[in-house]
Amino acid sequence: MNTYPSILLSKAVDQFASLPGIGRKTALRLVLHLLRQPQKDVEAFTDALSSLKQDVHYCRICHTVSDEEICPICNSHSRDRHTICVVENVQDVMSIENTGQFHGLYHVLGGVISPMDGVGPSDLEIDSLVERIVPEKIKEVILALPTTMEGDTTNFYIYKRLHNFINALPVEGEEECLKISQIARGVAIGNELEYTDEITLGRSIVNRIEFKI
Amino acid sequence: MNTYPSILLSKAVDQFASLPGIGRKTALRLVLHLLRQPQKDVEAFTDALSSLKQDVHYCRICHTVSDEEICPICNSHSRDRHTICVVENVQDVMSIENTGQFHGLYHVLGGVISPMDGVGPSDLEIDSLVERIVPEKIKEVILALPTTMEGDTTNFYIYKRLHNFINALPVEGEEECLKISQIARGVAIGNELEYTDEITLGRSIVNRIEFKI
Repeated sequence: MNTYPSILLSKAVDQFASLPGIGRKTALRLVLHLLRQPQKDVEAFTDALSSLKQDVHYCRICHTVSDEEICPICNSHSRDRHTICVVENVQDVMSIENTGQFHGLYHVLGGVISPMDGVGPSDLEIDSLVERIVPEKIKEVILALPTTMEGDTTNFYIYKRLHNFINALPVEGEEECLKISQIARGVAIGNELEYTDEITLGRSIVNRIEFKI
Repeated sequence: MNTYPSILLSKAVDQFASLPGIGRKTALRLVLHLLRQPQKDVEAFTDALSSLKQDVHYCRICHTVSDEEICPICNSHSRDRHTICVVENVQDVMSIENTGQFHGLYHVLGGVISPMDGVGPSDLEIDSLVERIVPEKIKEVILALPTTMEGDTTNFYIYKRLHNFINALPVEGEEECLKISQIARGVAIGNELEYTDEITLGRSIVNRIEFKI
């Protein structure tokens, strides 16, 4: 697909093809679809993107995408304001919200430590996480990062940082200690053991929990 | 994915998810990617789409996408101006151009006859094809439609229309007759017979051609 009959078409295809996971054939299909839509639909499309880029904020506290300076979750008084769930990105906030199982606050790192991709701790929102602990009187930090090598490295780094930070604080009340946890890893619900990979299955045996009824 | 932290984000996701083949998860990924790009890149994206919709034309003769009223192919004098290749859509023009094997003109139908989808002959650019035959002194019409039931139906319909049209013309010179051909169908180049479907293989035996060296 090198020869486009129109320069305008070719430019629009270039733009779509610059998006992740969109090849030139898909881009062409999308552009030709938009071309068949009424003018007002295409305007709605471009307006939505323009106003997104101009008006959207990242929450000043948890760094999720928000229409305001501070997101509705950080602003809410009906949530558990002493628990922070640390996630890699905005999608993960939405995924966890959709489970309906978590009622605390979030902290979006904006990535995970990955030396291969040149991402170090200083590229992530780790300092701002540590700075939230004392003023917000946080009692638990839940690490909900991906179960990859990079996720594990980041978990370990944050654990050490928080641990050192807490230990350096002047002791005021003995009972005031920070709990650091991570999400459970194991065989996914509905999966057959036969088709679960060896590492996951092995870990799920080592990290077994007591059966309670 | 029902809960978006931002209305602007949600609107942009809606727009992307309205495109064919783009689900809400992919749409979210694309929107968050655009959100991370510099302002000027997002502007380039929306500008390319706006100007596409406003300024692009469909060629008045062959109905392909074009920057001008008449496309470069219809305007070219280095092409065989007596052969028309009939295709379903603009992508097919590009695919055939990329083969470098065809040097005639095109005619884009804008679809194929499909009663199931409510597409009849009058929804396609068939009348305008018939109207080109005499003024442009066309000698051959090549039907390059998809090898589907709908493509076959459309082939047959166009064949009948052209046949009736030619027969109704007052005879001027006996030798001036219109050739109607269709692209060859058979086993794709590089394919093993073992993995070719039965219908294609069966047809390729029935429609075998003489081996020449």
